[in-house]
Amino acid sequence: MISLLIFILYSVGISYGVDNDTITLKCKQCKKFEPCWANLDTRILPKWYDEAKIGIFVHWGIYSVPGFSEWFWNNWDEKERIIQKFMSNHYAPGFTYQDFAPMFKAEFFDPNKWAHLFVKAGVRYVVLTTKHHDGFCMFPSRRSFSWNSCAVGPKMDVVAELSNAVKQVGLKFGVYHSLFEWFNPMFKEDKRNHFKTLYYSNMKLWPELKQLVIDYKPSLLWADGDWEAYDTYWRSTEFLTWLYNDSPVKEEIVVNDRWGKGISCKHGDFYNCKDRYNPGKLQPHKWENAFTVDKKSWGFRKTMNANDTLTMKEILHEVASSVSCGGNVLINVGPTQYGTIPPIFQDRLLKLGHWLEINGQAIYGSSPWHYQNDSINPDVWYTCQKIPYNAIYPTAKPLLTDTVSKIFAIFLTWPISNRILLKDVTGYILTSVYEIVLLGNDGDLPREVKNGLTYIKLPDKATVAVEYAWVLKFTPK
Amino acid sequence: MISLLIFILYSVGISYGVDNDTITLKCKQCKKFEPCWANLDTRILPKWYDEAKIGIFVHWGIYSVPGFSEWFWNNWDEKERIIQKFMSNHYAPGFTYQDFAPMFKAEFFDPNKWAHLFVKAGVRYVVLTTKHHDGFCMFPSRRSFSWNSCAVGPKMDVVAELSNAVKQVGLKFGVYHSLFEWFNPMFKEDKRNHFKTLYYSNMKLWPELKQLVIDYKPSLLWADGDWEAYDTYWRSTEFLTWLYNDSPVKEEIVVNDRWGKGISCKHGDFYNCKDRYNPGKLQPHKWENAFTVDKKSWGFRKTMNANDTLTMKEILHEVASSVSCGGNVLINVGPTQYGTIPPIFQDRLLKLGHWLEINGQAIYGSSPWHYQNDSINPDVWYTCQKIPYNAIYPTAKPLLTDTVSKIFAIFLTWPISNRILLKDVTGYILTSVYEIVLLGNDGDLPREVKNGLTYIKLPDKATVAVEYAWVLKFTPK
Amino acid sequence: MISLLIFILYSVGISYGVDNDTITLKCKQCKKFEPCWANLDTRILPKWYDEAKIGIFVHWGIYSVPGFSEWFWNNWDEKERIIQKFMSNHYAPGFTYQDFAPMFKAEFFDPNKWAHLFVKAGVRYVVLTTKHHDGFCMFPSRRSFSWNSCAVGPKMDVVAELSNAVKQVGLKFGVYHSLFEWFNPMFKEDKRNHFKTLYYSNMKLWPELKQLVIDYKPSLLWADGDWEAYDTYWRSTEFLTWLYNDSPVKEEIVVNDRWGKGISCKHGDFYNCKDRYNPGKLQPHKWENAFTVDKKSWGFRKTMNANDTLTMKEILHEVASSVSCGGNVLINVGPTQYGTIPPIFQDRLLKLGHWLEINGQAIYGSSPWHYQNDSINPDVWYTCQKIPYNAIYPTAKPLLTDTVSKIFAIFLTWPISNRILLKDVTGYILTSVYEIVLLGNDGDLPREVKNGLTYIKLPDKATVAVEYAWVLKFTPK
Amino acid sequence: MISLLIFILYSVGISYGVDNDTITLKCKQCKKFEPCWANLDTRILPKWYDEAKIGIFVHWGIYSVPGFSEWFWNNWDEKERIIQKFMSNHYAPGFTYQDFAPMFKAEFFDPNKWAHLFVKAGVRYVVLTTKHHDGFCMFPSRRSFSWNSCAVGPKMDVVAELSNAVKQVGLKFGVYHSLFEWFNPMFKEDKRNHFKTLYYSNMKLWPELKQLVIDYKPSLLWADGDWEAYDTYWRSTEFLTWLYNDSPVKEEIVVNDRWGKGISCKHGDFYNCKDRYNPGKLQPHKWENAFTVDKKSWGFRKTMNANDTLTMKEILHEVASSVSCGGNVLINVGPTQYGTIPPIFQDRLLKLGHWLEINGQAIYGSSPWHYQNDSINPDVWYTCQKIPYNAIYPTAKPLLTDTVSKIFAIFLTWPISNRILLKDVTGYILTSVYEIVLLGNDGDLPREVKNGLTYIKLPDKATVAVEYAWVLKFTPK
Repeated sequence: MISLLIFILYSVGISYGVDNDTITLKCKQCKKFEPCWANLDTRILPKWYDEAKIGIFVHWGIYSVPGFSEWFWNNWDEKERIIQKFMSNHYAPGFTYQDFAPMFKAEFFDPNKWAHLFVKAGVRYVVLTTKHHDGFCMFPSRRSFSWNSCAVGPKMDVVAELSNAVKQVGLKFGVYHSLFEWFNPMFKEDKRNHFKTLYYSNMKLWPELKQLVIDYKPSLLWADGDWEAYDTYWRSTEFLTWLYNDSPVKEEIVVNDRWGKGISCKHGDFYNCKDRYNPGKLQPHKWENAFTVDKKSWGFRKTMNANDTLTMKEILHEVASSVSCGGNVLINVGPTQYGTIPPIFQDRLLKLGHWLEINGQAIYGSSPWHYQNDSINPDVWYTCQKIPYNAIYPTAKPLLTDTVSKIFAIFLTWPISNRILLKDVTGYILTSVYEIVLLGNDGDLPREVKNGLTYIKLPDKATVAVEYAWVLKFTPK
Repeated sequence: MISLLIFILYSVGISYGVDNDTITLKCKQCKKFEPCWANLDTRILPKWYDEAKIGIFVHWGIYSVPGFSEWFWNNWDEKERIIQKFMSNHYAPGFTYQDFAPMFKAEFFDPNKWAHLFVKAGVRYVVLTTKHHDGFCMFPSRRSFSWNSCAVGPKMDVVAELSNAVKQVGLKFGVYHSLFEWFNPMFKEDKRNHFKTLYYSNMKLWPELKQLVIDYKPSLLWADGDWEAYDTYWRSTEFLTWLYNDSPVKEEIVVNDRWGKGISCKHGDFYNCKDRYNPGKLQPHKWENAFTVDKKSWGFRKTMNANDTLTMKEILHEVASSVSCGGNVLINVGPTQYGTIPPIFQDRLLKLGHWLEINGQAIYGSSPWHYQNDSINPDVWYTCQKIPYNAIYPTAKPLLTDTVSKIFAIFLTWPISNRILLKDVTGYILTSVYEIVLLGNDGDLPREVKNGLTYIKLPDKATVAVEYAWVLKFTPK
Repeated sequence: MISLLIFILYSVGISYGVDNDTITLKCKQCKKFEPCWANLDTRILPKWYDEAKIGIFVHWGIYSVPGFSEWFWNNWDEKERIIQKFMSNHYAPGFTYQDFAPMFKAEFFDPNKWAHLFVKAGVRYVVLTTKHHDGFCMFPSRRSFSWNSCAVGPKMDVVAELSNAVKQVGLKFGVYHSLFEWFNPMFKEDKRNHFKTLYYSNMKLWPELKQLVIDYKPSLLWADGDWEAYDTYWRSTEFLTWLYNDSPVKEEIVVNDRWGKGISCKHGDFYNCKDRYNPGKLQPHKWENAFTVDKKSWGFRKTMNANDTLTMKEILHEVASSVSCGGNVLINVGPTQYGTIPPIFQDRLLKLGHWLEINGQAIYGSSPWHYQNDSINPDVWYTCQKIPYNAIYPTAKPLLTDTVSKIFAIFLTWPISNRILLKDVTGYILTSVYEIVLLGNDGDLPREVKNGLTYIKLPDKATVAVEYAWVLKFTPK
Repeated sequence: MISLLIFILYSVGISYGVDNDTITLKCKQCKKFEPCWANLDTRILPKWYDEAKIGIFVHWGIYSVPGFSEWFWNNWDEKERIIQKFMSNHYAPGFTYQDFAPMFKAEFFDPNKWAHLFVKAGVRYVVLTTKHHDGFCMFPSRRSFSWNSCAVGPKMDVVAELSNAVKQVGLKFGVYHSLFEWFNPMFKEDKRNHFKTLYYSNMKLWPELKQLVIDYKPSLLWADGDWEAYDTYWRSTEFLTWLYNDSPVKEEIVVNDRWGKGISCKHGDFYNCKDRYNPGKLQPHKWENAFTVDKKSWGFRKTMNANDTLTMKEILHEVASSVSCGGNVLINVGPTQYGTIPPIFQDRLLKLGHWLEINGQAIYGSSPWHYQNDSINPDVWYTCQKIPYNAIYPTAKPLLTDTVSKIFAIFLTWPISNRILLKDVTGYILTSVYEIVLLGNDGDLPREVKNGLTYIKLPDKATVAVEYAWVLKFTPK
């Protein structure tokens, strides 16, 4: 009973504002967005984003040269001992962060190779750091003279190169952009003025962001570096109003939630909340789990060890648990200064792609189900596929709920007994007649229900090709 | 008759607005300058500048690294063949101008050494290129993040270093600053907009110029790179109004005339008109002859030959003719990328200083005389020293003219006959009884007046220590 | 019948001259080695080498900087198109191979980290390229002034650093050394002289090799680059005579077989024959399979993809088949220019170590068995452990054969049926009563013999922790 | 009387072994040189050298990059404070001398420009440092793999480039070559062995020197760096025997005297004795005064000031006094790392050339006269021109003495009195009737002899174009 109620409520709640043609149309007729959060929050999330589920995050910049982490400059400035020692041992006195720029040659950068890798990895969108907190622009920003990738380092418009390659293979392209810059003197001036002046936001940030949107037409804008000032300093609502009303990507664009002190986790097309955010339960608003394959850094780390990287099981745990709870995952890799994706990351991505080839139906275009984490088997995460109401009743009036067509149980440990125990599907199995299949294997699996629990007999392990995580599909017979 | 008239008119005209305490005081009480040229033109030239006569111009920047000339970047961009060939022969494809920055190490730069050299050279002020058309700031400009001498290259505030050293030895310090920047995208945007937008002037130029004035308190501001836009784009009159009324150097500052299309040679504390400007006759407004010791370049040129440099005679010709006609000279040298003044320039400067030790009284604090270039001996240039009226009649009312106390005739060729012929002094010699002395030698020289011409017997050449140019001093006995 | 005969013959043949204290002692008393192959071939292989089975090969040098392969310089010189294009796109004309040296900074090189990784990988010796064909010495060679790792690049004695670290963790240290140098003018001179002069071998090679042996006391010397000249040019037999008779490592040292044209696979303590040599059947002389984890290169390759690397299954296939046939494996990894082992290689090595923790008894100190590759199941490779005769009969006279105490069958594919089919063990199973255990799991496995074939029932796959390859151990009950 | 005797004796003595065709011919017929100094010392000096009088010395190498002096590496190694401070302030720890090599780009080196400059300077031969004590070869030495100008730095055969250019304009080309190398481990090994081993001299020095002589056919070989070992270690006499008997330049070659401890100033075609050697009186053996225009360094010095350079008067003093006493002068300049002769040196050289245009007859092909420095006027130096006996009596037998045809008195201070006082010419003036002319001016000068002294009335200084030093020519009427 209760579960049904939850189901209905949930089905309402979790629509995540996925756009409904009728509503969207009406909206466009009646009004434009206005620069206040209450209004901006009414925007319906473009459908592509929720369906995509998995994206790649690429942290690439001058910090790839020293190879400590993307926070290298800041930490050096704050006299982190290991960095100070490294610099004094290996570089001349007076060497500056800017002096690393010429070494960021990207001589082996092949954006098409990257794009093909990402396709093979099964991701649906790619987000690139177009400017990190160091202020170095990976495109010829008209507000960053001589401190961009055309002037020093790669000598190319990296954003254009990757954007084109990524779009050509059918993926969506997104741009990460840091609102603040640690050492930009205009920003520092505003900060000294307690953000009562807006030199930086007016003269640097706005023009740069607009150039980025207009020139590269990204589908996603991932703001960062917002925490030192309020959204009023960044003029975030004004910017989003422009973005939603008048920009060339107003239909398509999706933004995260880092738009000023206190905004994160409250406003934005999707919530990112914090790095590696993975709440473990269903969220009322679309969210994203951005995490790194190198556990210790977003940018390329020269001393990264194999042991510092997530295993496939860990990665699939992030994927399963996030998608189950309504999130997307944004899997981060840091390319080298010479322009390649390190093989250890390729290894993970290719294995992910391989896994998704068989198990992708539990992920792409899926929805959270009534239950997320199985109540007594914490190793299991549920997702489902729904048939949109209008696919079933095309002429009917909108309903409050979609119909669940398939349920998926993703489990991360293969039981030695070859028998898996589940609780939350028991009701369904009792009410409907379900076929239970292990993705990648054939055959309806024997099951037994006892005391509200379901025991499913898995296939002989020697016949199972899938590794790391396995998916049971429940379909009404 | 006519000459007397000229004399009187001239004496009025040539005051060059040298400040008169009484007048200045009154002015300060009554009003502030207003941002229109008619008003700004009423400013009285600070006395130090006219008295100084000789300054050093220093063109130093990243262009010192390739060592072709300060216009290297522009000429490369315009595909000058010799530069293209040089770059393709010696640098990797994609090498940018910015890539030269790390090589501009200035590792031997010793500002005190420079300052002492300049003192020995007998100059009274030093003007440094704080920013040339490449936009590279030789100081930590708050509007040139990562494109300044603290971030790349010398890793120091070059303007501060030199300014302090120069002031410490009692010289005045001036700043050259290019209004435009060839490749600054903000400037290019304004240009594309036919200078109807002022992004660059508002966001870059103004803040930078004000920082320069406030932080380094220069006595002279030498604007350049003004010719592409009108003064309204540069907001020149507004800037000068601030400079004259409210800046920390409002009493002391002297500016040149490059403040926008059509302004040069019309407005400014002194006129520079064009490079190597030397009109050869008396000018109604204070002016300056800025010329280079390397005939072919302002910035250091790696292929400069000894023959490309001005001889001492050529330099002294510039000095004599310019000072005689009411000008100052600004003698340019281009230091090396490692921070030294090339010895060939030192050689010229030290010889100049040596010459001035003996002959400086004809230069420093001198005024133009009735005549400049002798009417029949074009090799001779006149200057004079005046006793200010209030030195003679301290309690009297201001007079329209000062009293000439000494006349100097500078000649650049020693006559084989050891007899020099002059015309324009004849009247004076006839009316007064003058003592005629060759500076550096003793003794009243025999003279003969015939047909309105004066023949003066010079000392035996073997007894004369002065080289290159010689000065006859005429003093009433 | 036949198999027994093979067994006896084999047991004689495969002693590989592993040193026997008595014999060795006698030999030392009576004579010294003489510089002819017939004599040198009588040397008994130091025991440590045959027991070790698995070594790490490290190709590290300036070629790690361009990152194409260790043959970069030669291939560039021979105008390989991809390299020419790369160089002309990214480097200045005239750029030489030597110009890469300063970029070989090895700033993150931590020899102890390497050593610990190698220990974890379960290898028993480490062979470093002390000089490759480019002639660059990774130690301060007294015959390679200014072309060694102390003068340019790492600024350290890399051989000393790694040698010390490796020995400290109990591994053996070996040195790879290229006899020839592509571009050394002394070598080229000798070559032009049809190797009738020995300038290079006398003045460069000999002193350098002796310095290497004397200063670093390696346990293994891996010669290479021998193929252009006969051993008489290299003076190989003389060198080995010194090495075996008089060097500080005369007891311990093991050398390979690349000592001149026609020598390879004929003389040497062990035969390497050619790169990635893996004959697939038992060899009458000790041999080594040197292979690369990156299938395409020995040196670090910047464009290496995950797919270019050997999988664990492929690596374990090399290990199993080589050890089974009497070989050692030397697994090559190419570190980065900054001094780290790429994580993808670490990944493989750590997995290898993990595998060896459980299965090492089938490898270390093992001997080839009667059979190598199972006659009807080509996926299976046999090894065995022997009890040396004097461990059993300590006072007895030497016997011609050791006693096999354990047999191991390594298989690389887990049968879907969970039943493995073997032929060559059938006789033993029939004659003795054997316990059959899957390493890593407990319990004597059920077996069935039918028509000369043995079927063994494996444990439930869900209970098996070992991955990639599995080992059955046969022990007499 | 006595002076005549001196004259005759002298004329015999100072022939300096200038080759006489008859004698040379005879010598060639009868024997070859033998490797002992007594024998080698009998060699007759090739005529070109004594006639040339003035050569240019070029110190160019990697030391031009740090720009301290050619002894930079040694002094750094010996922890000279100023260098240590410089290095630790401006370079990374571990930076080596070899790391400077890539910066020695010589990108503006134009050997033809140099050659033309040298021609204009009036010199007759050019000596280049082909290898200094750092061991860096400016040519592709077959014994200096990767440490030569083709492998690193200029990427060219500098010796070939300059040699060809210099010969093309009709000058002689000479090679400076350092026997020892501070840090060559072979040399250090020999040194540790108290020079009982000759590894370095046999394997490095000899082959390199022979390559140099055979490939570039120099007219002069200027050995240096000999002082640590005896000539037996360097095998000097053997080398010279080869050079004089069998080398391709056996007729033409001239060598200096730095061939081992105790050899300098005793053996060699000409004596150099020590740096800046200028004995001030006539020497019995041909000698050379090698001196630097930069008083403080042979190699380019980045902090060289104008005041550190010799004035023209100082240079001409060296020329006059050396030539007068039978010496040649070898004037040293240090080019920049980018391949140019600094303008301050050009300035001196061009002025020298200008001086020689008028006064060269007192220098080129001149001989020492009876007197060198005037007995009572130390500011005056004499030279003379002789008519070879066979020019006068072509068919006569060889005489012991040549006939003096002209006497020159070079004076370095112009007397204020315009009257010059000489003693040593008085006898000649009394006995013969001489015409006395100031070179560059016309007219026989009035003279007066009184008390054994001669007073010569000079022309009016205002008519004299020559600067710095003046020459009186005495010719019998």
